[in-house]
Amino acid sequence: MKTLSEPTKRRLVLLERLLARYEEKMITSQKIAELTGWSAAVVRRDIFNLELNCGASNGYKVADLQEALKTALGMTSGQKKCCIVGLTKMGQALLDNIELEGSQFKIAAGFDSNVNRTEVLRSSFPLHPTTMLEQVIRDEKIEYAILTVPAQEAQSAAKKLEQCGIKRIVNYTPCVLSVSKDVCVENVSLLTALETLSI
Amino acid sequence: MKTLSEPTKRRLVLLERLLARYEEKMITSQKIAELTGWSAAVVRRDIFNLELNCGASNGYKVADLQEALKTALGMTSGQKKCCIVGLTKMGQALLDNIELEGSQFKIAAGFDSNVNRTEVLRSSFPLHPTTMLEQVIRDEKIEYAILTVPAQEAQSAAKKLEQCGIKRIVNYTPCVLSVSKDVCVENVSLLTALETLSI
Repeated sequence: MKTLSEPTKRRLVLLERLLARYEEKMITSQKIAELTGWSAAVVRRDIFNLELNCGASNGYKVADLQEALKTALGMTSGQKKCCIVGLTKMGQALLDNIELEGSQFKIAAGFDSNVNRTEVLRSSFPLHPTTMLEQVIRDEKIEYAILTVPAQEAQSAAKKLEQCGIKRIVNYTPCVLSVSKDVCVENVSLLTALETLSI
Repeated sequence: MKTLSEPTKRRLVLLERLLARYEEKMITSQKIAELTGWSAAVVRRDIFNLELNCGASNGYKVADLQEALKTALGMTSGQKKCCIVGLTKMGQALLDNIELEGSQFKIAAGFDSNVNRTEVLRSSFPLHPTTMLEQVIRDEKIEYAILTVPAQEAQSAAKKLEQCGIKRIVNYTPCVLSVSKDVCVENVSLLTALETLSI
């Protein structure tokens, strides 16, 4: 598959989710455009990147398109483990998140430097003091980190995660993380989202 | 200013934040590249869009660059009001968010269909039953909505917000929202972020 642009990636992720609830056997780029607000040309270009064999003249076979999307999104490559770093209010809100149920992602551990929090909070996965970060990430083969520490700790936590081999970070803090080029960061803080909308 | 691509917008938002903490008078694209992991060429192209007068040969004047970024990001156009729709765990985690302090954004109201929640929860801004949505958005001149309702209510809530004149939505639910072309959505759910990282 070709290297995909950021906006294409974002749209393909949403398209896969859209199709999971779509009940017809065929779908046209016009229909996708209608359901998403993207233009039909953009939709066709995005899908072209998937190197599907089915033609687009009468629309796409939903099953084929879903399969190609699942492959592109790495959904067929087994479970991916994540950890939550920072049991702040935001981190706590994610503890019982049902959103990941049925997905390929599983939160395998949570961390906080405050041992009170890791002992008192309830969760369906183990909570550890931050001193255990390296060992747990290695033992559990965790690949993704969800960063929910207070802003002033964000950069040092990101560096530490990088040292532990983490290459994928969902950043809920408003900080601009300085990490190596091979570490991917999705910035999802409220301020970042609002500012992006305001341009 | 030219129409900016999505990735450029995202980078400019982060660049503005980076410069707010940068203490030198001049900055080069190489330095920005070093601090962010973006390539220097990408940085120069992004900044070119701002139509700055200062040349890039010896680097950019930080003050000029900051001013151009603030204009591009609409930071000079006064306060922007937001509302939180859905006082779920995620909505509640955002109630006392200090992240927006000092920014141009202000949360002016929260909504939930459960009156128990709007009465019991504490917040620095008023919480209303969802039936008040239209009136409060109009009276308070709210422009941005932060969508934190349960997934199954997301689409109907988005439609309702659109009818109330909201054009900017930060979507914390994993749903693909079907809205008109003139409504912008930033998808920041955990699942969307993880999937985008996994492509």
